[in-house]
Amino acid sequence: MTTFNQLTPQQVAYIAGFLDGDGCVNAQLVTREDYILGFQIRVTVTFYQKTKRHWFLVWLQKKLNCGKIRKRPDGMSELTLVGVQTVQPFLQKIVQYLLVKRKQASLVLYICHNLSKKQSPEDFVRLCEKVDLIETLNDSKKRSIKAKDVKKHLGVDN
Amino acid sequence: MTTFNQLTPQQVAYIAGFLDGDGCVNAQLVTREDYILGFQIRVTVTFYQKTKRHWFLVWLQKKLNCGKIRKRPDGMSELTLVGVQTVQPFLQKIVQYLLVKRKQASLVLYICHNLSKKQSPEDFVRLCEKVDLIETLNDSKKRSIKAKDVKKHLGVDN
Repeated sequence: MTTFNQLTPQQVAYIAGFLDGDGCVNAQLVTREDYILGFQIRVTVTFYQKTKRHWFLVWLQKKLNCGKIRKRPDGMSELTLVGVQTVQPFLQKIVQYLLVKRKQASLVLYICHNLSKKQSPEDFVRLCEKVDLIETLNDSKKRSIKAKDVKKHLGVDN
Repeated sequence: MTTFNQLTPQQVAYIAGFLDGDGCVNAQLVTREDYILGFQIRVTVTFYQKTKRHWFLVWLQKKLNCGKIRKRPDGMSELTLVGVQTVQPFLQKIVQYLLVKRKQASLVLYICHNLSKKQSPEDFVRLCEKVDLIETLNDSKKRSIKAKDVKKHLGVDN
């Protein structure tokens, strides 16, 4: 597991500030036919920067020693950390410094913690409701799968 | 003069990160009929946040103990530090942590340092050329007064 122990407290604080300014802490529901419950909760942390300053994301990727960089067709680039194994230790490290996105980070950490346990359909639906909550905090405009869709699929009525 | 000594190194690093993500370090030329040279160089540092998270800028203003907050009609709020007396000590404090906007900060610090000295029209035009350079670094789309306008007004040919 990544530990992020290579970062100094000032670097951690700087990265938290940048994430609060131009980043995203997120959880999304994705359909997975190979999963027993039919859905997966995908946790992500994303940093944005104009592609003309792509070097910054390369620097950050090197500092974090993880994440994938993508050049978008609209002139923006993204560095994204995906999955519990990376996102959980990263957020544990920086959550104390976050202000604007601390609620999202706390919710994603709650989800990560619970995803490591065995989930009943009811437990999973409760986590999906946390995903809905994160979406409302993130000013997201994209259409997405909601907890109610998972409830319907699983026949859960809580 | 504001010293910003009330901030811890982690707070300084966090604020630098936020500024790199969602802020602006700038210098602009403004006409001033009461100035001998006819123009003033205005230096600013601005932090942005959606008005629904106005509380963040209020927190930042309190931490920095300076700056003015403005709610814009488009749903965004801004906290702005204006003028050499505030911007110079602030940038001196955070420039070591900046990555994305370090060039702009260094140029603004150069301008601040030189504005405190007596300026010949030729000296002033050279500072105005630094203002032009900052504008190109800032992806600005606004129409603005350029060094060539100042040169024309002062009849300087360097």
